[in-house]
Amino acid sequence: MLLRPLLSSASRAAKPRSPEPLAAATAAFLSRMAAAPASSAAAAGNREAFRVAVTNTLERRLFYVPSFKIYGGVAGLYDYGPPGCAVKANVLAFWRQHFVLEEGMLEVDCPCVTPEVVLKASGHVDKFTDLMVKDEKTGTCYRADHLLKDFCKDKLEKDNTLSPEKAAEFNHILAVLDDLSAEQLGAKIKEYGIVAPDTKNPLSDPYPFNLMFQTSIGPSGLSPGYMRPETAQGIFVNFKDLYYYNGNKLPFAAAQIGQAFRNEISPRQGLLRVREFTLAEIEHFVDPEDKSHPKFRDVLDLEFLMFPREQQLAGKSAMKLNIGQAVSEGTVNNETLGYFIGRVYLFLTQLGIDKDRLRFRQHLPNEMAHYAADCWDAEIECSFGWIECVGIADRSAYDLRAHSDKSGVALEAHEKFAEPREVEKLVITPSKKELGLAFKGNQRMVLEALEAMSETEALNMKSALESKGEVEFKVCTLGKDVTIKKNMVSINMEKKKEHQRKFTPSVIEPSFGIGRIIYCLFEHCFYQRPGKAEDEQLNVFGFPPLVAPIKCTVFPLVKIEKFEVVAKKISKALTTAGISHIIDMTGNTIGKRYARTDEIGVPLAITVDNTTSVTVRDRDSKDQIRVEVDEVASVVKEVTDGQSTWADIMWRYPAHTASAADEEEASET
Amino acid sequence: MLLRPLLSSASRAAKPRSPEPLAAATAAFLSRMAAAPASSAAAAGNREAFRVAVTNTLERRLFYVPSFKIYGGVAGLYDYGPPGCAVKANVLAFWRQHFVLEEGMLEVDCPCVTPEVVLKASGHVDKFTDLMVKDEKTGTCYRADHLLKDFCKDKLEKDNTLSPEKAAEFNHILAVLDDLSAEQLGAKIKEYGIVAPDTKNPLSDPYPFNLMFQTSIGPSGLSPGYMRPETAQGIFVNFKDLYYYNGNKLPFAAAQIGQAFRNEISPRQGLLRVREFTLAEIEHFVDPEDKSHPKFRDVLDLEFLMFPREQQLAGKSAMKLNIGQAVSEGTVNNETLGYFIGRVYLFLTQLGIDKDRLRFRQHLPNEMAHYAADCWDAEIECSFGWIECVGIADRSAYDLRAHSDKSGVALEAHEKFAEPREVEKLVITPSKKELGLAFKGNQRMVLEALEAMSETEALNMKSALESKGEVEFKVCTLGKDVTIKKNMVSINMEKKKEHQRKFTPSVIEPSFGIGRIIYCLFEHCFYQRPGKAEDEQLNVFGFPPLVAPIKCTVFPLVKIEKFEVVAKKISKALTTAGISHIIDMTGNTIGKRYARTDEIGVPLAITVDNTTSVTVRDRDSKDQIRVEVDEVASVVKEVTDGQSTWADIMWRYPAHTASAADEEEASET
Repeated sequence: MLLRPLLSSASRAAKPRSPEPLAAATAAFLSRMAAAPASSAAAAGNREAFRVAVTNTLERRLFYVPSFKIYGGVAGLYDYGPPGCAVKANVLAFWRQHFVLEEGMLEVDCPCVTPEVVLKASGHVDKFTDLMVKDEKTGTCYRADHLLKDFCKDKLEKDNTLSPEKAAEFNHILAVLDDLSAEQLGAKIKEYGIVAPDTKNPLSDPYPFNLMFQTSIGPSGLSPGYMRPETAQGIFVNFKDLYYYNGNKLPFAAAQIGQAFRNEISPRQGLLRVREFTLAEIEHFVDPEDKSHPKFRDVLDLEFLMFPREQQLAGKSAMKLNIGQAVSEGTVNNETLGYFIGRVYLFLTQLGIDKDRLRFRQHLPNEMAHYAADCWDAEIECSFGWIECVGIADRSAYDLRAHSDKSGVALEAHEKFAEPREVEKLVITPSKKELGLAFKGNQRMVLEALEAMSETEALNMKSALESKGEVEFKVCTLGKDVTIKKNMVSINMEKKKEHQRKFTPSVIEPSFGIGRIIYCLFEHCFYQRPGKAEDEQLNVFGFPPLVAPIKCTVFPLVKIEKFEVVAKKISKALTTAGISHIIDMTGNTIGKRYARTDEIGVPLAITVDNTTSVTVRDRDSKDQIRVEVDEVASVVKEVTDGQSTWADIMWRYPAHTASAADEEEASET
Repeated sequence: MLLRPLLSSASRAAKPRSPEPLAAATAAFLSRMAAAPASSAAAAGNREAFRVAVTNTLERRLFYVPSFKIYGGVAGLYDYGPPGCAVKANVLAFWRQHFVLEEGMLEVDCPCVTPEVVLKASGHVDKFTDLMVKDEKTGTCYRADHLLKDFCKDKLEKDNTLSPEKAAEFNHILAVLDDLSAEQLGAKIKEYGIVAPDTKNPLSDPYPFNLMFQTSIGPSGLSPGYMRPETAQGIFVNFKDLYYYNGNKLPFAAAQIGQAFRNEISPRQGLLRVREFTLAEIEHFVDPEDKSHPKFRDVLDLEFLMFPREQQLAGKSAMKLNIGQAVSEGTVNNETLGYFIGRVYLFLTQLGIDKDRLRFRQHLPNEMAHYAADCWDAEIECSFGWIECVGIADRSAYDLRAHSDKSGVALEAHEKFAEPREVEKLVITPSKKELGLAFKGNQRMVLEALEAMSETEALNMKSALESKGEVEFKVCTLGKDVTIKKNMVSINMEKKKEHQRKFTPSVIEPSFGIGRIIYCLFEHCFYQRPGKAEDEQLNVFGFPPLVAPIKCTVFPLVKIEKFEVVAKKISKALTTAGISHIIDMTGNTIGKRYARTDEIGVPLAITVDNTTSVTVRDRDSKDQIRVEVDEVASVVKEVTDGQSTWADIMWRYPAHTASAADEEEASET
C-alpha cells in the first residue's frame, strides 16, 4: 500500500469507484489544509529555505547524491554516500531488532526479478499505472494529474482575481485528483488549456503507463519479467511453506527487506519519490475470525496523534488518542492492526522522528480497496507536507486468494476442532475414472481445479449440468477451457462431521518506505546554531546514537606523537567494542573539527589533550567531561548503545572547561 | 572479477587473446585434476550423495527454496527462507564489521538500475556475453561451452574405448574451453556432432548473448538501462566525491553490498550460478607508485594454502605459504593485495569455512585482463569442486580511466610535493578567445576535452596541426567531432616547476559472492551422526555462533505452566540481550526437539526442567550443564558473542546428566 496509496491498492485489485466520493474527499482535503500551519507564502518560503539548508548539507556531506552524476545523473535515482549508507544500515538493523527479532517473525529474502505470472495474479501487470500525457511535438512525458494539480495550485496561490466559485472548483479538483478517470483528467486539461510546461506545445490525451521496469528472463526473449514493485508478493507466494515452517499455526508474520522499483513518469521531491527504493514489509497472517493479538496489552496505553476518518470528514484536525481506546471503541478495526500501529509509533519515535510531526491517518472509504478492512498510514510532516511513510493495512484474504486462484495451489490454513462439528456442506466428488478417460495426462489438473471451486462456482456448475448435461470449465493450470460432463463430477449438499475448518487467512500488512523515513528523519534531526563568526550558522544533525552514522570521533588536540599514540589506542578499544568512529589527525582547530562532525551528527567527540585522561564532548549540549583513557571506550559504548543517556553519565565524571584543558595541556607539553 | 572470471574481466576491457595459452592452461588443468581427491566414479558418487543430503536438509528446513515455486519456479532464482535469511544477515553483518568498520571503509549504496552509458564505459554493453547455441527446431538455448564441456567429460568418464590421443584431446579442450572463440567452439560442436541434449535436434552456430537484464528508464522508451551486473561501477563513478570526502588523501577504500543481476543462459548448480545474487565489493584506491599497506604487519605471519601460477603451470598442488614471505618474494605482487588476501582468509575461516578446503589461486596469464597487475581467487572446495568465491584483483587504473574518458570528468588524485620539482612536460594551452568565437556555447566542453588529452593524443594533434593546419577532434561530452584549428590551441614541451603530481589511482578489488560463500559454508558445516533408531542418521549444521541463524532455543521439558512461565522469562531476557532464539512449546520429546534444532544449526539449547536452574546443552558435543535461571541469558550471550567458547564455560558450571534431570524433574513435579 505504501508510497502510492491509490495506485498500489488499485494494483492489487480493481478498486470500485464510488459514485459520489467527491463531497467527502473535498471535506477531507480542506480539513487537511486547515490542519496545516498557516499556509501563507511566507510559511512556504520558510519551509523552502529550511529544506535548502538541509539538502545542501546532506549533499555536501555525501549523505546522498544523484546517482551517475558524472554522466549527468538519472532522475529519481540516488546514491547513499558513507554517512547516509551508515544511517540506512542502522535504521534497517533497528527494524530487524524491533520487528523481526522481538516479534519472532519469519524473515525471507526473495529476488527482485519476478516473472510476469506473479504480477499478473497480483494485479500489477494490468493496473499498476499512472496516467500520462505527451508533448505532441517533442514526445516529452508528464503525469497528467501533476499538470492539473500544478495548474490549480498556481491559480489558487497567484491569481488574485479568482472568483470564490472558481477557487472552490480548483480546491475541489485538488481534493478528488486521485479519483479522476483518464477521460475526466483529459477533459479538465482541455478545458483549462493546459499545455506542456517546457515548450507550451499541446498535449496528448491521458493514457495509462505501467510503472514497472520490464525485462526478459533467460535468453529466449519469450519469458517477460519485471523488477518487483514491492516485496510483499515474495511472501504471499511462499505462504504454504512458511505456514508449515511455523508448525501449521496462526497467527504468524513474515517479513522482508529489499529493493523495489517503480519507473516513475516524472520523479520529484528528492528521496521521497524515486525509481528504486528500499522497502521493509511485514505480512502478518491471522484467522479472519480472531484478530486479537497476544501482546496488545504492551501497547495499550500509548497515546499519539491519530486522524480517524470521521475527523477528516468533519473537517477537524488529528487528535491525541489512546490506542487501547481506539481499538475498543472500534475506531481501529481490530487488535492486531492496533498493535502494529503502536509498534510503528515506537519504532519511528525511537529512531528520532518527532512525535508531534507524526500522525496516523485512516484511509477514507474512497481510498481503500474494496476488500480492505481498514488502513492507516503513518504520515510524517516535513517541508514537503505530510508524507506517507508507513502503510498499515488489513488487506483481508485478497492476496492469498489471488495467488491461489492463479496458481491452482491452495493457500489456506486449518483450525482443528476440539470436538467434531456437524455441518451442511457442499461436497464436490469428481470421478477419477471418467476424468481419466476424458483428459488422460491432464486428469490431475482438471480434478484439482474441480475440487478448488468456490461454493458459488460449484452451485452454478451443478445447475448447468442438471439443465444442459455439460458445461465449459476453465482450468487455470492448463490455461484453457475443458468440457465437463454430468458423469464426471457429483455436487451435493451433504451433512458432514467436520474435524477442522479450512480458511484463507487475512493479512495485516505494515509496509515501510525506508528512504522516506530516512529523509524525514534528516529533516527532524537537523538544526542550526550560531557559530563564532557573525551571522555564521553551524549545521547540526541531532541524530539519536541509535541511528548516528558514526558514534564517536577521536581528535588529538595538537599534532604531537604522544597524543596520536593515545588516539590510536582509544581507536583500537572502540573497534573492539564495535563502535564506529573516525580519527581526525588533520590538525585543524578543535572548533572546526567539532563543527565538521556536528554536521554529520556524531553524538560524542573525544579530544586527546592528555595521556591519562581525555575530554568527552556531547554534540547537542556541548557539555564536556573528563574520562580516564582506559575507561573511555566503555563510557562511549554505554551512551551509544542506549544503556545510559548523556545526562545519566555526565554527573559521574568531572566537568571539563576550556581553561582546565589549557592548564593540563601546558603541564603536559 | 567475481563469479565469471573470464567474462567479467572481458566485460571491463578487451582481454587480448594470447596466441599460445594452451600448453600452459592444459598443464594448469591437469595439475588441478591431480590436486583433486581420487576422481573415480566412486568419489563422484560420494560427493553426489553428500550434496543430496545437504541440499535436502536445506530445502526441507527452508534455508532456501526455488523462487515462485507455486508457479513452477524460474531457473536461477532462489528465495532464502527464515534460517537462510538469518545466516545471510549474519554473514553480511560480519562482513561490515570485519571490513567496513575495522578498516574505516567508505560504504556506499547505489541503485541496481543503471543507465547504458555507464555500462558502455565499463565494457559490459559490448563484451559481457556468453556464447549461445539454439536448438534449430524448438529455439531452446544452451551455452555452447557447457555442451562441449559435457560432451568431453562424458567421453572421458564413460567411453572405455577412448584412445590416449583422443583422451588428451578432450582434456586439452577442457583446459582451454574459456579461451575458445565462437568459431572454434562452433567447429568443435560440428566436428563431434553435438546436438541439442533434450531433442537431439541440430544446433545453430554459437553467437554472443549479453548477460545483462535490459530495461528502459522513464516513460519515453528512449533511455535504455540495465540491472547492474556488479556493484563496482557505482563506486568508480563516485570516485571524485569519495576522494574529496576522504580529505583528498590516498589510500582509501570504498565498499558496497547489494544485488547484482546476470541473465544466465542456463543456470546450474543451485546457489552457485544464479540470475540474481548479493555481492559485497571493495575498491581500495592506491597510488600506483606506492602499494604498501600500513596494517600489513597484522597479517604478516598468516599461513594458508596458496596456489601460485608457477605451481599450477608445473602441475603441482596448492601449498601452505606464509603471506609475508609470498609478498616479499614477489609471488604476490604487492603489500596491499597481500593484506587483503590475509583479511579474506581471516573472514572466511571465522565464518566457518574449513581452512583445509580453502585456497588462494593466482590467475594464469591467460585468465587476466591485460591491465591487471595480479589476481588471486579465494576458492572453496565443495561437492561441485573448487568454487571461486572471492576475487582479489589489482586492476590498475583501468576502471577510473574508462569512466574518465567516457564522461570527460577527471577521476584522479594528487600528491603534493614537499619541494617543487622541475620537469619537462607537455603543456596544452587552449585559446579561450578563439574557441569562444568558433564554438560559442560549446566552448567549455571543447576546452575541457582539449585539456584532458593524453600525451600521445596531444602530440598527434600537434603534428597534425603543424602539417595540415587543422584537425578533426572528438568531444565526447558533445557526442560529435569538431574542427580544431592551429590558432585555437598551443601544444609545447616546456620545463615547468611542479608542486604536485596528478595521477589516476590504481584499484585493488576484493569482490565477494555472498551466495557462493554461504552455500560452501552450508556444506562445510554439515555433518551427520547416528540417531537412536537403527540406521537413523541425524543432520547437523555445525555453524559457529557468529553465523548460526538462531543462537538458542528454549524448551520447557514438559508442558506444565510453571515451566512455561520460566521459559517465557528466559525468552524475555534473551530478547533484551539481543539474542535471536525460539521457544518450542510443542511438547514433543526432548530428543526430537534437539534433533530439529541441530538440523538448523542452533548452537545452544536451554531445557527448562526446574524453576530455579535449567539445563544448557551444546549442539556439537551434546554436553549439558546446569545454570541458574537468572544467569542463563548472559551465559548464552557470552558464547554466542564469541567472548567465550563452550569449552571455556562448561567448567564453570555443574555438568548435567540425564538421570540428574529425571531426579529433579521427579522432585519438582
